[in-house]
Amino acid sequence: MARPRKTEHNKEIILAKGIDLLCEQGYNGTGLKQILDAVQVPKGSFYHYFESKEVYAAQVIDLYIERLLSAFDNYVKYATDRPLDVIKQLYQWMVLDFQRKQCKEGCLLGNLAAEIGGSSELCQEALVRAYNQWQQRFVPLLIEGQDAGEVRQDIPADLLAEIFWNAWEGSILRMKVTESTVTIERTLTVLLDKLFRP
Amino acid sequence: MARPRKTEHNKEIILAKGIDLLCEQGYNGTGLKQILDAVQVPKGSFYHYFESKEVYAAQVIDLYIERLLSAFDNYVKYATDRPLDVIKQLYQWMVLDFQRKQCKEGCLLGNLAAEIGGSSELCQEALVRAYNQWQQRFVPLLIEGQDAGEVRQDIPADLLAEIFWNAWEGSILRMKVTESTVTIERTLTVLLDKLFRP
Repeated sequence: MARPRKTEHNKEIILAKGIDLLCEQGYNGTGLKQILDAVQVPKGSFYHYFESKEVYAAQVIDLYIERLLSAFDNYVKYATDRPLDVIKQLYQWMVLDFQRKQCKEGCLLGNLAAEIGGSSELCQEALVRAYNQWQQRFVPLLIEGQDAGEVRQDIPADLLAEIFWNAWEGSILRMKVTESTVTIERTLTVLLDKLFRP
Repeated sequence: MARPRKTEHNKEIILAKGIDLLCEQGYNGTGLKQILDAVQVPKGSFYHYFESKEVYAAQVIDLYIERLLSAFDNYVKYATDRPLDVIKQLYQWMVLDFQRKQCKEGCLLGNLAAEIGGSSELCQEALVRAYNQWQQRFVPLLIEGQDAGEVRQDIPADLLAEIFWNAWEGSILRMKVTESTVTIERTLTVLLDKLFRP
């Protein structure tokens, strides 16, 4: 079996560190030197992999969503619960992750959308791709829920998925300023147990 | 009649410029020099009014919400429409404002919550105050709607107001990356015409 090339391995380490740093400190709040120090690579190596900090950030977004989607797919593949319960459990798992990080980081996609979504074209493209991929994963679950009569049918599933994600991202902003996941949990409950019901 | 003191006037000009700059470029993306150049005041004057950039940002948040609340109150005082229509028109007015700015700025509260909500205590406090004040303005309207039978009664009005704002803030993030208000408008319609109805 071929071993993964060392350079690819290094590249992923530098990108993975970016998920933490950009999530916590934002794009402009994270200096290149800080990234280099954190992964202990010289500036030259960084520029060997990434043309610029902007290219780097766009690839960090790609890795972030790739990991999220892979966790989602692994979970859903073996889930036997009803569709809305699958969604609820997935999001509860993310709430736990936020709590572990003292509610300080939030969602990389939302953070970067807010900070540089209007100014960096490259990151904008990566964010749109990520938003679409994530949202689309929920449409089949919501359709399944509609077919089973546990999700209202008067609103198309892709629209429900969009509303759901907007409310989720908005509640994460609230979490960051209140340092509590109470609003997120309340939002999940009201949407999935009340508003989305027939 | 006493004239407003010149220093207070200057201070408000510096703060008002901060609304535009911080909205568009974020906290770390806006340098002190840029603020000083934009309002043409020397560094000394800035520090006469504000101890630090962080204190400045917190006061920019206060001014931003003060202006929004004042626009809200003026509008609602003379509104004769039904409660949900008042909310819809208020938000349509904000959508127009976003469009005028080519969807680049978004909401100052959401932007700063995402970028520094987890790191600056001062801004965090200002953001929590702003969030609460804005959200509370909608509760009486929603209660009025519930009493008139046009808003569902199985969810308390303050919870509906919270969900509404979360979905709104999340859809603004989407607006920034797609450079379009389509998602925001769709979110408003689904919430006010479907999900919030009895």
